[in-house]
Amino acid sequence: MIDSPPDRSPLYARVESALAERIQLGALSPGDRLPSEDELADEFAISRTTVRSAIQSLIQRGLVEIRRGRGTFVTSPKIVQELTNLTGFVEDMEALGREATAELLDQRIVRADPAVARRLAIAQGTPVTRIRRIRLADGTPLSYDETFLPVHLGEKVVADDLETEPIFALLERKYDTPLVEAEYQLEAGVADSTIAAALRVSLGSPVFLIERTSYTTGGLPVDYERLHYRGDKIRFITRLARRGAVGSGS
Amino acid sequence: MIDSPPDRSPLYARVESALAERIQLGALSPGDRLPSEDELADEFAISRTTVRSAIQSLIQRGLVEIRRGRGTFVTSPKIVQELTNLTGFVEDMEALGREATAELLDQRIVRADPAVARRLAIAQGTPVTRIRRIRLADGTPLSYDETFLPVHLGEKVVADDLETEPIFALLERKYDTPLVEAEYQLEAGVADSTIAAALRVSLGSPVFLIERTSYTTGGLPVDYERLHYRGDKIRFITRLARRGAVGSGS
Repeated sequence: MIDSPPDRSPLYARVESALAERIQLGALSPGDRLPSEDELADEFAISRTTVRSAIQSLIQRGLVEIRRGRGTFVTSPKIVQELTNLTGFVEDMEALGREATAELLDQRIVRADPAVARRLAIAQGTPVTRIRRIRLADGTPLSYDETFLPVHLGEKVVADDLETEPIFALLERKYDTPLVEAEYQLEAGVADSTIAAALRVSLGSPVFLIERTSYTTGGLPVDYERLHYRGDKIRFITRLARRGAVGSGS
Repeated sequence: MIDSPPDRSPLYARVESALAERIQLGALSPGDRLPSEDELADEFAISRTTVRSAIQSLIQRGLVEIRRGRGTFVTSPKIVQELTNLTGFVEDMEALGREATAELLDQRIVRADPAVARRLAIAQGTPVTRIRRIRLADGTPLSYDETFLPVHLGEKVVADDLETEPIFALLERKYDTPLVEAEYQLEAGVADSTIAAALRVSLGSPVFLIERTSYTTGGLPVDYERLHYRGDKIRFITRLARRGAVGSGS
């Protein structure tokens, strides 16, 4: 009754497994170039078409990526980020020992669309400050962030250098607006042209979307963000207790 | 300094906004068919190419979907599910007033791959029970689940009817295995052929992947799952406190 996939699975799946094992065991490391299609076809005595199917499966699994004109490479493992406290991008990267930088795309006043209005508890059409940034980890774009602030805070924040100053730090340390908690809404999507350009990925690439509304004292929403993370680069981790379980405190 | 997108944005974006507004205001409801390309081209006095760009943007935003051979339809809003306690699919759907059903694809003994072995704290290659199911909400496939159990539990569970009995309920109520907590790993991906077939979506559709390892008393892992949710149908919601903030308890 024990499954032995290598014996019954299709040819491409066996080659896929063999290559995945080399990656998992470290014979192929992140950043390494895979052998060429011809080399793999020779090594496994299979057709190039079968090699391509195997590589397509490895791409789907996120183990390798095609860099146009240069070949197929073993991907870097995902950044594994805790989702247990309200933290900003710079804090998250510091906790992981990675360098956080930012590229400011624009900052301007726009009218609140229905979603922004609902989250910031203001009337639709009210002017709000919108800040768009690309957040990088060790120089690689990881998240495309749209931040919406009430104008009374936004007009202060945009006077600072938003390529070096985190907005959370400005609100808390400079503008007397402590953050207490946030509501997170998590979704999986795919990159449209704006997101693809910002994150330097292909149209249709996976995107982990976080909509985050942060509240200051008194339950007042002060910061609504749409964070578009590269799906191939990020994994969030949390622990949840069983309701009523011993030690869950509920 | 106030942004007025309708006046400066490209033509297709104005049509996109107009249609999005009809959906948001309820002039077009979930399940409604959009007017045809010709009708929209006439109404807005634009080319069919521009109509198509506008519709593509609406698809990207998840507001409409193409049903092959039948037209373009307004999508149903996403299921918004709490991510605050360890709960199973049937419990989640009950909390939302939706009917949960399951289709059992297969149940068999397989050898633990490196990921399964690590999560269940067993040696790679150890036999484990694998159960594959499609979970449906109100008759629509919502999640494709792979469950891995240690064989001593798996051999009991597979004797039950897994189309009607939730595994969590079996473990807790019938097999004396209380669940205490779980580790969740959350990722965004796209559907490969297996997932696309199970969820009845197109290849490359967004997938919200949850890897969940549930622990019984004594910190013993007893259930490792890979839950592949339809990205266009699910949104998870949680609240996180700022560390050190008043009332955050840390």
